Amino acid sequence: MRLTDLAHQSGEWLRGVGADSDIVISTRIRLARNVAGYPFVARLKPADQADLSQRLCESIVDDAVVPECHYFDLKVASDIERRLLVERHLISKEHEEAQGDRGVAIRLNEAVSIMVNEEDHLRIQVLHSGFELAETWRATNEVDTGLARRVPYAFSERLGYLTACPTNVGTGMRASVMLHLPALELAKQIEKVFHAVAKINLIVRGLYGEGTQASGNLYQISNQISLGKTEEEILQEIQGIIPEIVENERRARHFLLERNRQQIEDRVWRAYGMLCHARIISSGETIALLSHLRLGVHLGILSELDIAAVNQLFVRTLPAHLQVLEGRELDPQVRDVARAAYIRKCLAQGRHTGDQ
Amino acid sequence: MRLTDLAHQSGEWLRGVGADSDIVISTRIRLARNVAGYPFVARLKPADQADLSQRLCESIVDDAVVPECHYFDLKVASDIERRLLVERHLISKEHEEAQGDRGVAIRLNEAVSIMVNEEDHLRIQVLHSGFELAETWRATNEVDTGLARRVPYAFSERLGYLTACPTNVGTGMRASVMLHLPALELAKQIEKVFHAVAKINLIVRGLYGEGTQASGNLYQISNQISLGKTEEEILQEIQGIIPEIVENERRARHFLLERNRQQIEDRVWRAYGMLCHARIISSGETIALLSHLRLGVHLGILSELDIAAVNQLFVRTLPAHLQVLEGRELDPQVRDVARAAYIRKCLAQGRHTGDQ
Repeated sequence: MRLTDLAHQSGEWLRGVGADSDIVISTRIRLARNVAGYPFVARLKPADQADLSQRLCESIVDDAVVPECHYFDLKVASDIERRLLVERHLISKEHEEAQGDRGVAIRLNEAVSIMVNEEDHLRIQVLHSGFELAETWRATNEVDTGLARRVPYAFSERLGYLTACPTNVGTGMRASVMLHLPALELAKQIEKVFHAVAKINLIVRGLYGEGTQASGNLYQISNQISLGKTEEEILQEIQGIIPEIVENERRARHFLLERNRQQIEDRVWRAYGMLCHARIISSGETIALLSHLRLGVHLGILSELDIAAVNQLFVRTLPAHLQVLEGRELDPQVRDVARAAYIRKCLAQGRHTGDQ
Repeated sequence: MRLTDLAHQSGEWLRGVGADSDIVISTRIRLARNVAGYPFVARLKPADQADLSQRLCESIVDDAVVPECHYFDLKVASDIERRLLVERHLISKEHEEAQGDRGVAIRLNEAVSIMVNEEDHLRIQVLHSGFELAETWRATNEVDTGLARRVPYAFSERLGYLTACPTNVGTGMRASVMLHLPALELAKQIEKVFHAVAKINLIVRGLYGEGTQASGNLYQISNQISLGKTEEEILQEIQGIIPEIVENERRARHFLLERNRQQIEDRVWRAYGMLCHARIISSGETIALLSHLRLGVHLGILSELDIAAVNQLFVRTLPAHLQVLEGRELDPQVRDVARAAYIRKCLAQGRHTGDQ
């Protein structure tokens, strides 16, 4: 399997299935782990880092801790390949931009990815479509347990799992849920959500993690604290608040349909019209318009459009994806033209009968 | 014939034919005339105004000065009917809003309309599609000569035709050409046109005459002075400048296609996408988008769309037209929804194969 093959497949978080998938895009859990006997990555000598990368790759792939798993060496990957992995949420921006010997192991269905020698020696990530905290945690635990049998983790009885950054010490866990909240945003109630979330020490971030802006009305909610609580306690906090937000978004959508049906239909159909006809379109405008399309599908306005196709467009129209799908490097202006053509093609294929 | 039947027919100036009709929408000449022995309208007693209206109606219609001609009594016409006539450029806003006994005679094909007891007793207007100054003048002259045989005009050897407002004294003529200049506007060269026009005492106005804003990149160019020049001299001035403006617009369009083809295609297709999909749309936005559509048709971008259909939408989406076509009064919000539906229907009927 080549890394660029990823661009052509659907990926777990894009499937648009799972509980509450009209609002919850995906559930993600990541664990930070380090290997006993090695310094943290920042202090690792290049030769040792290469050894460790090799050793971890073997433990993950060769010993089949994760089935159907491929390891990609990021030191030799191209810029576009590394960007592609970021766009698919399989590696972090930091891992993309780092220099040393490092890699990522990816399960074919993209439900599991393990970054090797990112900030920590191991960053295990499990990602499922929809609101699936229990199943995601079960799968994460399975990978973690399997790895722990082959790799001696750096662990302290007092602190828990030791990590390069103190904010991850303890469980080393960050659980996050990605939500699509267009109706709450339209109703200007999104700030209320943030306040409720902040009260219980969870944080809200944009589509691409820390420091990124929310675009396309997509928000990630995750725990801020990994120390002093068990994994189950952290998960319970998230499990407690998400249904409330989902319920609020659902109510806001019903309200929009009842009180402002024409306005919301207008917004959805205009977004559809733009995406079907634009000849030049930026990535940012695309995400904003796709957000309206997604809402339209779930409100039954664009009922014959396939939600998985819409979800896929969110990712496939991003710069690296577009270049891989086109099979060549494209400067930003050419990319905006190629993006518009690609969207038109996809929407024409997924076109429903209710066009007018 | 009922007045509201007009909304269903095409009208001369909407035909999109005649010389340079890719840029020149229409050519119009109007003559202000008054009947000797009567005070001007502003000083006419109601009973005399009623008599004069009756007399002029008979001269125009019954004596067949204008063939296939209908007379509409505006004192009994409804608000929507009077507005409809303004939207079709068959009467002035002042004539719409006046109170006294007054009317308009309209030739079935709408090439001729004669306002009775507007500011002057008679306002003869002839309107042809495209840049057709000679033919329009010939037809105007014919109506004027025919009427002069039946009605004694107020005329002074020294001043020429006497009119209520001194700005019309002399020839009583205003000749105007309506131009669609989207490329010059995009290229920010429209001010240059205004300056060139102002130098030779012509003036530029918007779609609905004096004091109205240009919308949809539509401009009327007409003579400011009616005194001290013959009709032929006035026409020659206009005949001299229009081809120059047409040539500039044509050059600007070619330049756009050569240097900014993708940008202009994007703009045209986005306008098309909006018009095909919006569920709520104002009259102002409609005109702006139709302007891009019209440009797109003439640039061959929307090559299979019928230009007459696009031209018709300019008028049929205006408030009174829409209400007549819908057969009921609509408040502005409902109108914006009905307008969007009407546009979608028309464009679906005129849909070309090159949609994607």
